[in-house]
Amino acid sequence: MNPDITRERENATFDVEKLTHILDGGIEKTKRRREIESLVISDPDFQSEDLNFLSRSERYDAAVKKSAQMILKLREYGISDPEEIYCYKSCVHRGRSEPLDLHLGMFLPTLLNQASPEQMETFFIPAWNLEIIGTYAQTEMGHGTHLRGLETTATYDPATQEFVMNSPTITSIKWWPGGLGKTSNYAIVLAQLHTQGKCHGLQAFIVPLRSMNTHIPLPGVVVGDIGPKFGFDEVDNGYLKLENVRIPRDHMLMKYAKVEADGTYVKPPSAKLTYGTMVFIRSMIVGEAGHALAKSCTIAIRYSSVRHQSEIRPGEAEPQIMDYQTQQYKLFPLLATAYAYKFVGQYMNQVYHRITGDISQGDFSELPELHALSAGLKAFTTWTASAGIEVCRMACGGHGYSRCSALPDIYVTFVPTCTYEGENTVMMLQTARFLIKSYRQASAGHQLSGIVSYLNESERRLQPQSVSSRPTVVNVNDLASLVEAYKLRAAKLVEMAAKSIQQELQKRVSQEDAWNNSAIDLVRASDAHCHYVVVKLFAAKLGEIGDTGLHSVLSTLALLYALQGIQQHSGDFLQTGLLSVPQLSQVSQRLKELLAQLRPNAVALVDAFDYRDEMLNSVLGRYDGNVYEHMFEWARRSPLNKTEVHESYHKYLKPLQANL
Amino acid sequence: MNPDITRERENATFDVEKLTHILDGGIEKTKRRREIESLVISDPDFQSEDLNFLSRSERYDAAVKKSAQMILKLREYGISDPEEIYCYKSCVHRGRSEPLDLHLGMFLPTLLNQASPEQMETFFIPAWNLEIIGTYAQTEMGHGTHLRGLETTATYDPATQEFVMNSPTITSIKWWPGGLGKTSNYAIVLAQLHTQGKCHGLQAFIVPLRSMNTHIPLPGVVVGDIGPKFGFDEVDNGYLKLENVRIPRDHMLMKYAKVEADGTYVKPPSAKLTYGTMVFIRSMIVGEAGHALAKSCTIAIRYSSVRHQSEIRPGEAEPQIMDYQTQQYKLFPLLATAYAYKFVGQYMNQVYHRITGDISQGDFSELPELHALSAGLKAFTTWTASAGIEVCRMACGGHGYSRCSALPDIYVTFVPTCTYEGENTVMMLQTARFLIKSYRQASAGHQLSGIVSYLNESERRLQPQSVSSRPTVVNVNDLASLVEAYKLRAAKLVEMAAKSIQQELQKRVSQEDAWNNSAIDLVRASDAHCHYVVVKLFAAKLGEIGDTGLHSVLSTLALLYALQGIQQHSGDFLQTGLLSVPQLSQVSQRLKELLAQLRPNAVALVDAFDYRDEMLNSVLGRYDGNVYEHMFEWARRSPLNKTEVHESYHKYLKPLQANL
Repeated sequence: MNPDITRERENATFDVEKLTHILDGGIEKTKRRREIESLVISDPDFQSEDLNFLSRSERYDAAVKKSAQMILKLREYGISDPEEIYCYKSCVHRGRSEPLDLHLGMFLPTLLNQASPEQMETFFIPAWNLEIIGTYAQTEMGHGTHLRGLETTATYDPATQEFVMNSPTITSIKWWPGGLGKTSNYAIVLAQLHTQGKCHGLQAFIVPLRSMNTHIPLPGVVVGDIGPKFGFDEVDNGYLKLENVRIPRDHMLMKYAKVEADGTYVKPPSAKLTYGTMVFIRSMIVGEAGHALAKSCTIAIRYSSVRHQSEIRPGEAEPQIMDYQTQQYKLFPLLATAYAYKFVGQYMNQVYHRITGDISQGDFSELPELHALSAGLKAFTTWTASAGIEVCRMACGGHGYSRCSALPDIYVTFVPTCTYEGENTVMMLQTARFLIKSYRQASAGHQLSGIVSYLNESERRLQPQSVSSRPTVVNVNDLASLVEAYKLRAAKLVEMAAKSIQQELQKRVSQEDAWNNSAIDLVRASDAHCHYVVVKLFAAKLGEIGDTGLHSVLSTLALLYALQGIQQHSGDFLQTGLLSVPQLSQVSQRLKELLAQLRPNAVALVDAFDYRDEMLNSVLGRYDGNVYEHMFEWARRSPLNKTEVHESYHKYLKPLQANL
Repeated sequence: MNPDITRERENATFDVEKLTHILDGGIEKTKRRREIESLVISDPDFQSEDLNFLSRSERYDAAVKKSAQMILKLREYGISDPEEIYCYKSCVHRGRSEPLDLHLGMFLPTLLNQASPEQMETFFIPAWNLEIIGTYAQTEMGHGTHLRGLETTATYDPATQEFVMNSPTITSIKWWPGGLGKTSNYAIVLAQLHTQGKCHGLQAFIVPLRSMNTHIPLPGVVVGDIGPKFGFDEVDNGYLKLENVRIPRDHMLMKYAKVEADGTYVKPPSAKLTYGTMVFIRSMIVGEAGHALAKSCTIAIRYSSVRHQSEIRPGEAEPQIMDYQTQQYKLFPLLATAYAYKFVGQYMNQVYHRITGDISQGDFSELPELHALSAGLKAFTTWTASAGIEVCRMACGGHGYSRCSALPDIYVTFVPTCTYEGENTVMMLQTARFLIKSYRQASAGHQLSGIVSYLNESERRLQPQSVSSRPTVVNVNDLASLVEAYKLRAAKLVEMAAKSIQQELQKRVSQEDAWNNSAIDLVRASDAHCHYVVVKLFAAKLGEIGDTGLHSVLSTLALLYALQGIQQHSGDFLQTGLLSVPQLSQVSQRLKELLAQLRPNAVALVDAFDYRDEMLNSVLGRYDGNVYEHMFEWARRSPLNKTEVHESYHKYLKPLQANL
């Protein structure tokens, strides 16, 4: 054990294990998670060469191998709880995506939710037994977030009782679905349904892609891998071009909408029924943002405690780089953010489960709020976390660029969340739509409840109008007071966005153009709303913490999170008159004090995330802090070192030397 | 040609070709650059498979092949002007780093600058003829930016008149030098010189690493590749462990410092002589930041003009995504930034050449200012450009993640500039040191000249103290007025940092701790200083533009750049009383107008950067806008598509299906 990191742990003021339980959601959950991790990590079938040393085809191969093993073992161990499956899977693939992701996460659940009982009988067991390996083909080359624009067609032919599936244009080729390129032999394909001469919009169809015996693509099916990406080397994201592919009528998912034998289209009872999965996945991503940032902080903070560099006081030994104020200022606010997002993830998960209970009772009342919240928070957290991972990586200096740090991998694995499951700017604008609608309702005298109740007229009238007209009430040392400030900022920015739309309308532009011409303000308002929610939930979490030591250190983190947000958006707080110029100096001063206060607990706070070395897979983030010897050992295994002299020397350099 | 992009070009209001000349530095330079590009692009020896489809070892191999060809061709064509060599090299390697970079960029120049005449005779011609392939081994596993901490030793043995080179610890192993792993047979090694029982600090030594005949590492030399990184697949960044390697006395570079036969150390006349290269490389990086951002903007803006998505007005066709205000707000300020950095790069280049002229005359007076400016601007521009590349990438939606967009590659190739040649935060603090020193000189009544003259007492006294005490004078429509605001902001933030140090000192902490405890403020001050310099230089550049059309569009860009910076740092401008709250609303409004104003010229402005398709190598950034068909064609060439059925199906999936 590196003595520096041992000393860090000795200096901690709280019980690390207790904090781990809080993060896991209870002592029992920690225990079970560790059991599952041990099961995977000690399993000889899941040992493999470092993926960094493999080609993409080898990485895909290794991933398919592990996924196949995983399916067998999950059954062998009888692991069937979705959360436990997710945990097992994350361990097997070390948090990376894998070729069966969409089979397990989209194909099977979509069958469960949208297949009729007869369809369940036909497809579910084969899919459960992986005779059918499916993916979910929605995105097209020319169409992503805007679903109505999808061009793939399914035209019903009553003569044969078949749908004829087509990709009528180049832009209609399905593009990006994971596992589509090489792995899947089936896909659920989203297509525009045409029957009896009319288009009835998007429906889901079960389309066989490859022979069940030979895995060769079926006639009319042009399918393949879309080529290398920024990360995701293990996944065969694919393309799919359908050329008059005929499927039987019962291959349209018919639990809700239906096409009868003669081609009559029967509408589904409610459009909201398919909302749930989307909201669930976005909520999950919020937790993943906390996760990705927690891993990055673990690596950067442990490394900062063993790395010595430069000098603060001349003549003294080189200090740990964590002693530099600039290093603390980079990492500690991100550590606080990781905690914040983990808690928000827990909250979203709870709300989701509560609301799905209501939905199954036919009560959709809370869905719009959850939908808006999950969209905005998904965007808010993934943007911040992505940028934060890179800050962590760069805080490790040169070695952060080495694949042995694991940080490049964390980045490329996480950053796509900014785009998939709804492009972030579009998400922010969806939340803004809910906020503006709520604001207008409140302005019309309607009393709002829930998270947007701060937009109620009565509350708005209590808000400050400008610096001069009111005394400032914010106490920069009091979290509750800061939550209030974030709330008022959100209220003010929603109002500003609404007024911008109003002003545009006065220029006689259309509603739609007024919206687009105010989009910058709308995104800003959504951002402020989400920021408020995160600060509020972090503060609320503190109320659940009984242990004094834990409460103290988490309060410091929460205060740091809130104050750093104020400093970064100081313009907003000054502009809305919520903070005075002298208070801003107080914020800066207080931030510095909080950094110093957190310094002794930094390593313990990342230890509490409880990532095993095997899961982090980072030389810089090793628990024992013995970084350099392992970096050397890792480098020597680089494929370029298999021979002392690379063949290019004999091929190009030696002949060149003779030529010059 | 895609009709959308044709229409964009028809709508431009200025002469693209004229702007290209300004960016190149004259019509002749454009002509010559294009000649060189054509030479390379039409050369059959430089055609190769898409690097994205190759393994790392194959990419290294391909790069060595091209570099070897390149050396032959440069001699064949008689290209010897450093700028032209750089241009040719960039074309051959499409802007990527390559295995001979350090041989050409560091080994040869260091010989030229620091070798004695006898050493030149011994080493230069063999190195010129690539019998000696050298690298520059400075960074160690445990030591980067802080050079004094380097641990490698060179101990003089007068008995044999040799230096004994050693890596005494694991942290002293040389780590990262490009071309060190497999390519080089020599290195200039930076090591602590020990002679006659005393350490004399860092000196440079020429150390043979591999046999000139077999390329096998010499006894005592442990050398190899450090393994895969975030990008830089073509380069064999290496490690080097020296175990009692003996080199003759004349292998220490002795133009300035010397060790005599008996071991007597002779000091160099001035320490500043080796400053130059460092300053030059940092200045170059500023231009590279403009370059990387320009390429990214070219791709994202062209793609945004041909990509249609979603709807603004219901029932109408999907608009070009460039018509969304949020998309304009992401891309146009970055476009303005790219122009700004290109102009700053030109300026730095001119200043460097002027000052090196002075230095060769023995006049070092301007060196500290240039040193401070190049450090800060390097950090300022590389941070912004790196983040900006990712914004451009994500503005392309899902397809930005595909390697065919080229954007992932631009990012991983450019982002290391934040760390190499001086870690960015350290660079910012170096600039801060110069600013604080200047501030103190001014406070002591000394009259400052040059770029920091705004810190003079007389000017500072004219500055506003708070919102209330003065009328606001900034005109948000007048660039000169905005330059003034940036200047006053910088002055104020330098003063605040200086006061923070003062306050710390009053708490009786040491000078060094006071500095560290004010580091956040110091970085902030440097950042404001650099921002001021960039805005000022952009404004100055406008003065050189005679053409009305060009002047108009560049003025719009400059105003956009300045106003967006104010919006992003609105807290600073409000806090320092330079802007009032109502003016901030004006800034937001004006920004939206500028976005709309730039919209018709956006494609023409990226066309003016004049990147040939072969140089951009981006399907999304194609000049003809025909994105989708080429994306499909590219994907089909993916190595995973070589067979219809991947072998993993037969190895793992088929047997699994039988087992379940």
